Amino acid sequence: MNSKFSYQCNDCGREIPGEGIVYLCSECAGRQKAGQPPAGILKVIYNPLLLRGLTFKKLEENRFIDLLPFNDTRSLPFLRTGNTPLYRISGRETAIRGHELFIKDDSQNPTFSFKDRASAVVSAFAKEQEISTIVAASTGNAGSSLAGMCAAQGQKAVIFAPASAPAAKLTQILMYGAVLVPVNGNYDIAFDLSIEATKHFGWYNRNTAYNPLTIEGKKTAAFEIYSQLGHRIPDRIFVPVGDGVIISGIYKGFEDMLKSGITDSMPEIVAVQAEGSSNLVDNIGKKEFNYTPSSTLADSISVDIPRNFRMAEKYLLQYKGKTLKVSDWQILEASRQLAAQTGLFAEPAAAAAYAGYLLTCATGITGKGSINVLLLTGSGLKDLKSVQPLLHIPEAVSPDIHSVTSLLKENTDLL
Amino acid sequence: MNSKFSYQCNDCGREIPGEGIVYLCSECAGRQKAGQPPAGILKVIYNPLLLRGLTFKKLEENRFIDLLPFNDTRSLPFLRTGNTPLYRISGRETAIRGHELFIKDDSQNPTFSFKDRASAVVSAFAKEQEISTIVAASTGNAGSSLAGMCAAQGQKAVIFAPASAPAAKLTQILMYGAVLVPVNGNYDIAFDLSIEATKHFGWYNRNTAYNPLTIEGKKTAAFEIYSQLGHRIPDRIFVPVGDGVIISGIYKGFEDMLKSGITDSMPEIVAVQAEGSSNLVDNIGKKEFNYTPSSTLADSISVDIPRNFRMAEKYLLQYKGKTLKVSDWQILEASRQLAAQTGLFAEPAAAAAYAGYLLTCATGITGKGSINVLLLTGSGLKDLKSVQPLLHIPEAVSPDIHSVTSLLKENTDLL
Ligand SMILES: [Zn+2]
Ligand SMILES: [Zn+2]
Repeated sequence: MNSKFSYQCNDCGREIPGEGIVYLCSECAGRQKAGQPPAGILKVIYNPLLLRGLTFKKLEENRFIDLLPFNDTRSLPFLRTGNTPLYRISGRETAIRGHELFIKDDSQNPTFSFKDRASAVVSAFAKEQEISTIVAASTGNAGSSLAGMCAAQGQKAVIFAPASAPAAKLTQILMYGAVLVPVNGNYDIAFDLSIEATKHFGWYNRNTAYNPLTIEGKKTAAFEIYSQLGHRIPDRIFVPVGDGVIISGIYKGFEDMLKSGITDSMPEIVAVQAEGSSNLVDNIGKKEFNYTPSSTLADSISVDIPRNFRMAEKYLLQYKGKTLKVSDWQILEASRQLAAQTGLFAEPAAAAAYAGYLLTCATGITGKGSINVLLLTGSGLKDLKSVQPLLHIPEAVSPDIHSVTSLLKENTDLL
Repeated sequence: MNSKFSYQCNDCGREIPGEGIVYLCSECAGRQKAGQPPAGILKVIYNPLLLRGLTFKKLEENRFIDLLPFNDTRSLPFLRTGNTPLYRISGRETAIRGHELFIKDDSQNPTFSFKDRASAVVSAFAKEQEISTIVAASTGNAGSSLAGMCAAQGQKAVIFAPASAPAAKLTQILMYGAVLVPVNGNYDIAFDLSIEATKHFGWYNRNTAYNPLTIEGKKTAAFEIYSQLGHRIPDRIFVPVGDGVIISGIYKGFEDMLKSGITDSMPEIVAVQAEGSSNLVDNIGKKEFNYTPSSTLADSISVDIPRNFRMAEKYLLQYKGKTLKVSDWQILEASRQLAAQTGLFAEPAAAAAYAGYLLTCATGITGKGSINVLLLTGSGLKDLKSVQPLLHIPEAVSPDIHSVTSLLKENTDLL
């Protein structure tokens, strides 16, 4: 084959050649059963002939284009996407346990979330294919991210959202000038309608666990982590998990490096879910997929049927990943600790990953000298509401020192 | 003198030696009249003997430490502060008018606003002076910024805020673990109380137009703009103006480069205020300062008596700056345009600067080939409420293509 990449079905392993628009393996998707995670999701496979002699140095110099599903990095949005900081954290836990903790701060993206990595790649691909309208079903980060990236690229974004989504969540989407289609129905109904509309109007669809290119965007975080650690594979990465797409993206990045001979090992990835939304980790290795309705304050990882379950499961089993569940209260408490101890104000999903890290520290299994990485997927400004239970505002004082002294004595250890 | 820097009074010109904590020129501040902008504000002046032979290359290599009021860049917070992107924008206006527009995106800072530049410098200075508690009066960006930076540095932040501030505005401050002191009274009363408490408890105060180091932090944006333009002074910089501190910071950065012989000219700076809060631009060159109560949706530039009026006025007169006023509706419209055309969702204050740019384009005075820069001071996520009047959410559709088609025909030009 001469083409840069092809697609491979995650379920049947069948290879679908070509670099055009392909969403699912039609055979497997045709056998899709109701109430089950989507089947036939595709993975992008790069032509090994073109990867011969690829080094990380060359990969990095070329802004990862050798392992991206389009041809020219100039097709990417002009906004600084990815290249987010990796911070080395010196905290109480690292001091006690003698390991290292790094936080990959993906709130420092154009629309303030990790999703920009996926949107940027989808948008770049669309640009090279001369597609001007991109569709997604989302009420949250993915929708605002696609809307923002399309605005930067002069493309049109169409976002399908459940009508029940609160206006505040839609603000960013609307400000970026996207077309909003509120749908009477839940997320799944909006998802299906977005796909029907994509076909009907001849648009391009960005839905995660449907468009295989979102994983290709998300994997760039793995490349950057490897680079920022001085070309080292970390021992462990804590990833918040909802539908299983982000974790698959991180795995894919490390797997691409492994398969092209750049690296020779894989990190241990810890999939952290909220106790109230743990259908992904609960079903791993099970013969039959069963789910319980999800309920967690960590909106962006609240999922009934994880759409990328099959791929995430495969990765976790193949590369011996770990799973963890944290309670909403642990998420809130982790959110408070993370912000107060590092100055990083994260969205609840990211705080869940931090809660998972704290739990792992408490059990003492981080390992002396081990390198641990935490993926901070979005800004806390994205969801101010969920942290309100944490906030204690003292009663107002009259403007004199005596009153200030009383307030400080009652509420703080400053005096 | 041997010291790295000293202070100079903006009003009487008196020089105050030493590198310790100094806030105001006591003589001028002693003559302060009620209802007038603060007198005796100080400027940091660097020892010319130590600047001999300073080139921009050297300045940049040393992360600007030669022109910063502390001794070691390792005293700065570990969070990536400044080094924000400067985007070249190709828009309708640049195409028509034949000029260049660059946007300096300071929403890409740890707490998502420009204020982090000031907090970082104040915090670094405090660290070198072994001060562990820093105080500020603020309900907005400055308060959350100081709280975040202190969290990263292991310092304690104490924030004085008017009790009337809505909880949402205080969320970031509280999450970073700062001590919040709600004060029965307006911003001015909280400001004065914060200074009294600073003296009483022996803390350190970050208030803008009081602590001369905030300007030193803000000026780093000027250094970066010069660098990112390939060592060129832009023709024009649009800056949102409230209390006059940000604009003074930008001037100070270019002035420091001019005075140390690195550059030989100054940019034209355009001070953009909201029509409903224009006390700074309205009083320039006037014998007597008079103000009208301010009212604008652009919160962070809504100011009655601009605390740094005297310095901003001096700069604008000396370097022939321009002034502009824009209406709240122009700000909203600019906010929408900026987000939809570039993918940059800015806080209303920053949108005001963009509105000023659009107004300048309309009058045709940008000049063919001129280099224009816009300072984007903070993220739109900081104030979702103010843009709500812009948002139109179409009526929800039932999940079928026919309904989608109707919605698109009625609301968009997609079909
Ligand atoms: Zn298949
Ligand atoms: Zn003086």
